[in-house]
Amino acid sequence: MSLQDALTAVADPVRRTILRALDGQPDWSKACGTFDLPVTKATRSHHFAVLRAAGLVEQRDEGPRRLNRLRRKEFDVAFPGLLALALREER
Amino acid sequence: MSLQDALTAVADPVRRTILRALDGQPDWSKACGTFDLPVTKATRSHHFAVLRAAGLVEQRDEGPRRLNRLRRKEFDVAFPGLLALALREER
Repeated sequence: MSLQDALTAVADPVRRTILRALDGQPDWSKACGTFDLPVTKATRSHHFAVLRAAGLVEQRDEGPRRLNRLRRKEFDVAFPGLLALALREER
Repeated sequence: MSLQDALTAVADPVRRTILRALDGQPDWSKACGTFDLPVTKATRSHHFAVLRAAGLVEQRDEGPRRLNRLRRKEFDVAFPGLLALALREER
Protein backbone atom coordinates (compact mmCIF):
# COMPACT_ATOMS: atom_id res chain seq x y z
CA MET A 1 0.00 0.00 0.00
CA SER A 2 1.51 3.34 -1.00
CA LEU A 3 0.87 6.58 0.85
CA GLN A 4 0.16 8.34 -2.45
CA ASP A 5 -2.50 5.80 -3.42
CA ALA A 6 -4.06 5.99 0.04
CA LEU A 7 -4.28 9.79 0.09
CA THR A 8 -5.55 9.96 -3.49
CA ALA A 9 -8.21 7.37 -2.69
CA VAL A 10 -9.69 9.19 0.30
CA ALA A 11 -9.43 12.67 -1.27
CA ASP A 12 -12.45 11.97 -3.48
CA PRO A 13 -15.92 12.60 -1.96
CA VAL A 14 -17.66 9.83 -3.92
CA ARG A 15 -15.08 7.32 -2.71
CA ARG A 16 -15.60 8.48 0.87
CA THR A 17 -19.34 7.93 0.38
CA ILE A 18 -18.59 4.34 -0.66
CA LEU A 19 -16.36 3.86 2.41
CA ARG A 20 -19.01 5.20 4.78
CA ALA A 21 -21.66 2.95 3.24
CA LEU A 22 -19.37 -0.07 3.68
CA ASP A 23 -18.57 0.94 7.25
CA GLY A 24 -22.23 0.61 8.19
CA GLN A 25 -22.54 -2.99 6.92
CA PRO A 26 -21.10 -6.40 7.81
CA ASP A 27 -18.19 -7.60 5.65
CA TRP A 28 -19.18 -9.21 2.36
CA SER A 29 -22.80 -8.10 2.63
CA LYS A 30 -22.88 -5.18 0.21
CA ALA A 31 -22.69 -5.58 -3.58
CA CYS A 32 -21.23 -2.92 -5.86
CA GLY A 33 -24.57 -2.30 -7.57
CA THR A 34 -26.31 -1.37 -4.32
CA PHE A 35 -24.47 1.87 -3.55
CA ASP A 36 -26.49 5.03 -4.07
CA LEU A 37 -24.01 7.17 -6.03
CA PRO A 38 -24.51 10.14 -8.36
CA VAL A 39 -22.17 8.73 -11.05
CA THR A 40 -22.27 6.52 -14.14
CA LYS A 41 -21.58 2.81 -13.96
CA ALA A 42 -18.16 3.28 -15.55
CA THR A 43 -17.21 5.95 -13.04
CA ARG A 44 -18.43 3.74 -10.21
CA SER A 45 -16.19 0.92 -11.45
CA HIS A 46 -13.26 3.32 -11.58
CA HIS A 47 -13.84 4.41 -7.98
CA PHE A 48 -13.92 0.80 -6.79
CA ALA A 49 -10.70 0.09 -8.69
CA VAL A 50 -8.99 3.03 -6.97
CA LEU A 51 -10.20 1.83 -3.56
CA ARG A 52 -8.95 -1.70 -4.24
CA ALA A 53 -5.55 -0.44 -5.44
CA ALA A 54 -5.20 1.68 -2.31
CA GLY A 55 -5.85 -1.33 -0.07
CA LEU A 56 -9.11 0.06 1.30
CA VAL A 57 -11.54 -2.41 -0.18
CA GLU A 58 -11.43 -6.13 -0.94
CA GLN A 59 -13.87 -7.71 -3.38
CA ARG A 60 -15.10 -11.16 -4.27
CA ASP A 61 -17.64 -12.41 -6.74
CA GLU A 62 -20.60 -14.42 -5.57
CA GLY A 63 -22.72 -15.41 -8.54
CA PRO A 64 -23.75 -12.22 -10.31
CA ARG A 65 -22.85 -10.02 -7.34
CA ARG A 66 -19.50 -8.44 -6.51
CA LEU A 67 -19.31 -8.21 -2.73
CA ASN A 68 -17.13 -5.85 -0.74
CA ARG A 69 -15.21 -5.75 2.50
CA LEU A 70 -13.65 -2.69 4.09
CA ARG A 71 -10.03 -3.50 5.04
CA ARG A 72 -10.18 -1.58 8.32
CA LYS A 73 -7.37 -3.21 10.30
CA GLU A 74 -4.85 -3.52 7.47
CA PHE A 75 -5.39 0.10 6.44
CA ASP A 76 -5.25 1.40 10.02
CA VAL A 77 -1.91 -0.29 10.59
CA ALA A 78 -0.46 1.15 7.38
CA PHE A 79 -1.94 4.66 7.73
CA PRO A 80 -3.01 5.40 11.32
CA GLY A 81 -5.97 7.74 11.59
CA LEU A 82 -6.65 8.09 7.87
CA LEU A 83 -9.66 5.78 7.65
CA ALA A 84 -11.28 7.45 10.66
CA LEU A 85 -10.97 10.80 8.87
CA ALA A 86 -12.27 9.35 5.62
CA LEU A 87 -15.35 8.02 7.43
CA ARG A 88 -16.07 11.32 9.12
CA GLU A 89 -19.37 12.90 8.08
CA GLU A 90 -18.82 16.31 6.61
CA ARG A 91 -20.83 19.33 7.53
CA MET B 1 -10.88 23.95 7.96
CA SER B 2 -12.80 21.48 5.81
CA LEU B 3 -11.96 17.79 5.56
CA GLN B 4 -12.17 17.97 1.77
CA ASP B 5 -9.65 20.83 1.62
CA ALA B 6 -7.34 19.03 4.03
CA LEU B 7 -7.35 15.74 2.12
CA THR B 8 -6.98 17.48 -1.25
CA ALA B 9 -4.04 19.49 0.10
CA VAL B 10 -2.03 16.51 1.32
CA ALA B 11 -2.87 14.27 -1.66
CA ASP B 12 -0.41 16.18 -3.87
CA PRO B 13 3.25 15.10 -3.73
CA VAL B 14 4.66 18.59 -4.39
CA ARG B 15 2.61 19.98 -1.51
CA ARG B 16 3.87 17.20 0.76
CA THR B 17 7.43 18.16 -0.24
CA ILE B 18 6.69 21.73 0.88
CA LEU B 19 5.28 20.47 4.19
CA ARG B 20 8.33 18.28 4.86
CA ALA B 21 10.68 21.18 4.09
CA LEU B 22 8.75 23.40 6.52
CA ASP B 23 8.75 20.69 9.15
CA GLY B 24 12.54 20.75 9.25
CA GLN B 25 12.78 24.49 9.92
CA PRO B 26 11.83 26.88 12.72
CA ASP B 27 8.57 28.81 12.21
CA TRP B 28 8.85 31.93 10.05
CA SER B 29 12.34 31.08 8.86
CA LYS B 30 11.66 29.78 5.36
CA ALA B 31 10.60 32.03 2.45
CA CYS B 32 8.48 30.77 -0.43
CA GLY B 33 11.28 31.33 -2.95
CA THR B 34 13.68 29.00 -1.13
CA PHE B 35 11.87 25.70 -1.69
CA ASP B 36 13.47 23.37 -4.18
CA LEU B 37 10.48 22.36 -6.29
CA PRO B 38 10.24 21.02 -9.84
CA VAL B 39 7.44 23.42 -10.81
CA THR B 40 6.94 26.89 -12.30
CA LYS B 41 6.55 29.96 -10.13
CA ALA B 42 2.81 30.13 -10.90
CA THR B 43 2.31 26.49 -9.91
CA ARG B 44 4.32 27.06 -6.74
CA SER B 45 2.04 29.96 -5.82
CA HIS B 46 -0.99 27.77 -6.45
CA HIS B 47 0.35 25.05 -4.14
CA PHE B 48 0.94 27.57 -1.35
CA ALA B 49 -2.59 28.94 -1.83
CA VAL B 50 -4.03 25.43 -1.47
CA LEU B 51 -1.96 24.82 1.69
CA ARG B 52 -3.12 28.12 3.19
CA ALA B 53 -6.78 27.42 2.35
CA ALA B 54 -6.52 23.99 3.98
CA GLY B 55 -5.16 25.51 7.18
CA LEU B 56 -1.78 23.83 6.88
CA VAL B 57 0.40 26.86 6.32
CA GLU B 58 0.33 30.44 7.57
CA GLN B 59 2.26 33.19 5.77
CA ARG B 60 3.45 36.70 6.49
CA ASP B 61 5.42 39.18 4.45
CA GLU B 62 8.70 40.51 5.73
CA GLY B 63 10.11 43.00 3.26
CA PRO B 64 10.50 41.21 -0.05
CA ARG B 65 10.16 37.76 1.52
CA ARG B 66 7.02 35.76 2.22
CA LEU B 67 7.71 33.64 5.28
CA ASN B 68 5.90 30.46 6.27
CA ARG B 69 4.80 28.62 9.35
CA LEU B 70 3.46 25.07 9.50
CA ARG B 71 0.23 25.07 11.56
CA ARG B 72 1.02 21.78 13.28
CA LYS B 73 -1.12 21.99 16.41
CA GLU B 74 -4.21 23.52 14.80
CA PHE B 75 -4.16 20.96 12.00
CA ASP B 76 -3.53 18.04 14.35
CA VAL B 77 -6.53 18.99 16.46
CA ALA B 78 -8.79 19.26 13.41
CA PHE B 79 -7.49 16.16 11.60
CA PRO B 80 -5.66 13.79 13.96
CA GLY B 81 -2.88 11.83 12.30
CA LEU B 82 -3.11 13.44 8.89
CA LEU B 83 -0.10 15.75 9.16
CA ALA B 84 2.07 12.89 10.43
CA LEU B 85 1.13 10.88 7.34
CA ALA B 86 1.72 13.86 5.04
CA LEU B 87 5.21 14.30 6.51
CA ARG B 88 6.11 10.64 6.07
CA GLU B 89 8.95 10.02 3.65
CA GLU B 90 7.86 7.77 0.82
CA ARG B 91 9.80 4.83 -0.42
